Amino acid sequence: MRATIMYRAGDVRVENVPDATLKEPTDALVRITRACICGSDLWPYKDLAPTAIGRHMGHEAIGVVEAVGADVRKVKKGDFVVMPFAYSDGTCEFCHEGLPTSCVHKGFFGNGGEADGAQAEAIRIPLADGTLYVLPVREDHALVPSLLTLSDVMGTGHHAAVVAMVSHGKKAAVVGDGAVGLCGVIAAKRLGAEQIIILGRHPARIELAKAFGATDVVSERGEEAVERVRKLTGGFGVHSVLECVGTDQAMVTAVSIARPGGAVGRVGVPHYEATPNSPLAFYNNITVGGGPAPVRAYIADLLPDVLEGRIEPGRVFDRTIGLNEVPDGYRAMDKREAIKVMVKP
Amino acid sequence: MRATIMYRAGDVRVENVPDATLKEPTDALVRITRACICGSDLWPYKDLAPTAIGRHMGHEAIGVVEAVGADVRKVKKGDFVVMPFAYSDGTCEFCHEGLPTSCVHKGFFGNGGEADGAQAEAIRIPLADGTLYVLPVREDHALVPSLLTLSDVMGTGHHAAVVAMVSHGKKAAVVGDGAVGLCGVIAAKRLGAEQIIILGRHPARIELAKAFGATDVVSERGEEAVERVRKLTGGFGVHSVLECVGTDQAMVTAVSIARPGGAVGRVGVPHYEATPNSPLAFYNNITVGGGPAPVRAYIADLLPDVLEGRIEPGRVFDRTIGLNEVPDGYRAMDKREAIKVMVKP
Repeated sequence: MRATIMYRAGDVRVENVPDATLKEPTDALVRITRACICGSDLWPYKDLAPTAIGRHMGHEAIGVVEAVGADVRKVKKGDFVVMPFAYSDGTCEFCHEGLPTSCVHKGFFGNGGEADGAQAEAIRIPLADGTLYVLPVREDHALVPSLLTLSDVMGTGHHAAVVAMVSHGKKAAVVGDGAVGLCGVIAAKRLGAEQIIILGRHPARIELAKAFGATDVVSERGEEAVERVRKLTGGFGVHSVLECVGTDQAMVTAVSIARPGGAVGRVGVPHYEATPNSPLAFYNNITVGGGPAPVRAYIADLLPDVLEGRIEPGRVFDRTIGLNEVPDGYRAMDKREAIKVMVKP
Repeated sequence: MRATIMYRAGDVRVENVPDATLKEPTDALVRITRACICGSDLWPYKDLAPTAIGRHMGHEAIGVVEAVGADVRKVKKGDFVVMPFAYSDGTCEFCHEGLPTSCVHKGFFGNGGEADGAQAEAIRIPLADGTLYVLPVREDHALVPSLLTLSDVMGTGHHAAVVAMVSHGKKAAVVGDGAVGLCGVIAAKRLGAEQIIILGRHPARIELAKAFGATDVVSERGEEAVERVRKLTGGFGVHSVLECVGTDQAMVTAVSIARPGGAVGRVGVPHYEATPNSPLAFYNNITVGGGPAPVRAYIADLLPDVLEGRIEPGRVFDRTIGLNEVPDGYRAMDKREAIKVMVKP
């Protein structure tokens, strides 16, 4: 089968590899009908050190179960499923608490660990019963792009909003206009925010943010952005900040635009060792939380809104390519020519 | 009148100063019956740069109202009151939200700003109606030491527990065995924690922590402390960490002993610019919050438990001195000879 392998920063290839197969009795084998490229895939695309064996890439997909191991009970052949970006047993205390990304048997797809990547024709899913979510529609359903976002990006935007404690009537800001930030706008609106400020400057992304419910746009950066947000919010900043970038500067801004007593939900993979702006966060009693989104736990909550058309996160995909074009998809996302690229293997 | 002035690190003096008086129509004048020395007073005691005019010290006191300004409505002469460490108007949106330490007219006592210090015979209280809490007992009440802790230390320990989301049946840990940490133990028990681990090594403090409800003691430091807490908690750490020190190392430990999905409530004044251990906090979805405790907002909640004897935070005072002995009180707390010193002007 074909799969996407990254050998070093900037070097992504689609190659023939041995077919995915069942290895453990708790595995499922999924034929991928749609995958995509994630903003977090761009980090190794920028900085992966050379590796002779390569890293299998991709952690978001939707597909059809082709086979299941002997111990799989809930998922069966022919099911149309969404895979979250992490696998989990579904039975440990963390899974029961709604934090499957901290499952005692967790693992992440396509990040250089044992699990394979989803930018491929098929994938082995460990702990299939805990990991896969069976969808109540067929693989040709019109909402497939939005359903695919439940694999990561929509659940991640939702996590930022949940951790930032967005609720009815609150003011929210989203730092970052990537696909996660755009899904953060959807999530903030869905949770009832009355004001949603998007910090970004890319015209197509800003347009989509407005369509998703952003009420204000701040295209300035740094201290100027902070001043603008304060002006837009009566001087004090927002209750909830969704930090969807992961850089030190984005976090400095996030803390600076939070209202005293507010919260920052960070879902951008942190590229800093210590969270900046710590004294300001302290004096303003601002909470900073977040991490890998427990997207598996959010699917049941978000799915009805997708199926009934109340949210349309699939609109973040502005380009669809075949598997062989994946290297160009990375390039396009890295150059910000595409918001998010869908892959049709 | 006599008041406590600090001129530089280690140089604390009790001097004659002009009597405290009303300045604004919203002021009250309070004769102080008990004050105390705070762990946070030890920071300038260690590092205050020389200042010719000196800094009036102290921000915790209980006393009797001697006079009120023309616009004061709720507080009246003769009332026995507790002052929180910050003043606030009691009417702004932050005060209404329970965060008076972010009041739009806030100020802090005894920190070098406009407000005077409470380690004195009397003090001017700005915004008296919003700031002072009138107690339903007389100044000779047996529970005065515990009532005095509502000025800061008990409310601050409670804030750490609230931000760390302590609740019934949860596991908690308290980093720091100072008076705030000890009050954190009281708060964690009061909020229902089933396991309360105190990290500290000072025998008298540990003994008091146990009396307050600590179930386990970890006297190791650094990575060894982390390992011990993990062993005591089935391998995963605690749901709630009360960080009551304020150093970089204490925060490294706090994040390291939090269970995935857990929360750190920090109330130690941070002596770091960036919150360490940020990637670990991210990957474990640990929330870090806290700041200056909104003690004014907590008094109504904590007072009944003090008056009915369910909590005894006044036991943190292990030494009582007169005002003239305050310099020695600083020395004793700095040398850890005393847990917390009460001052009887």
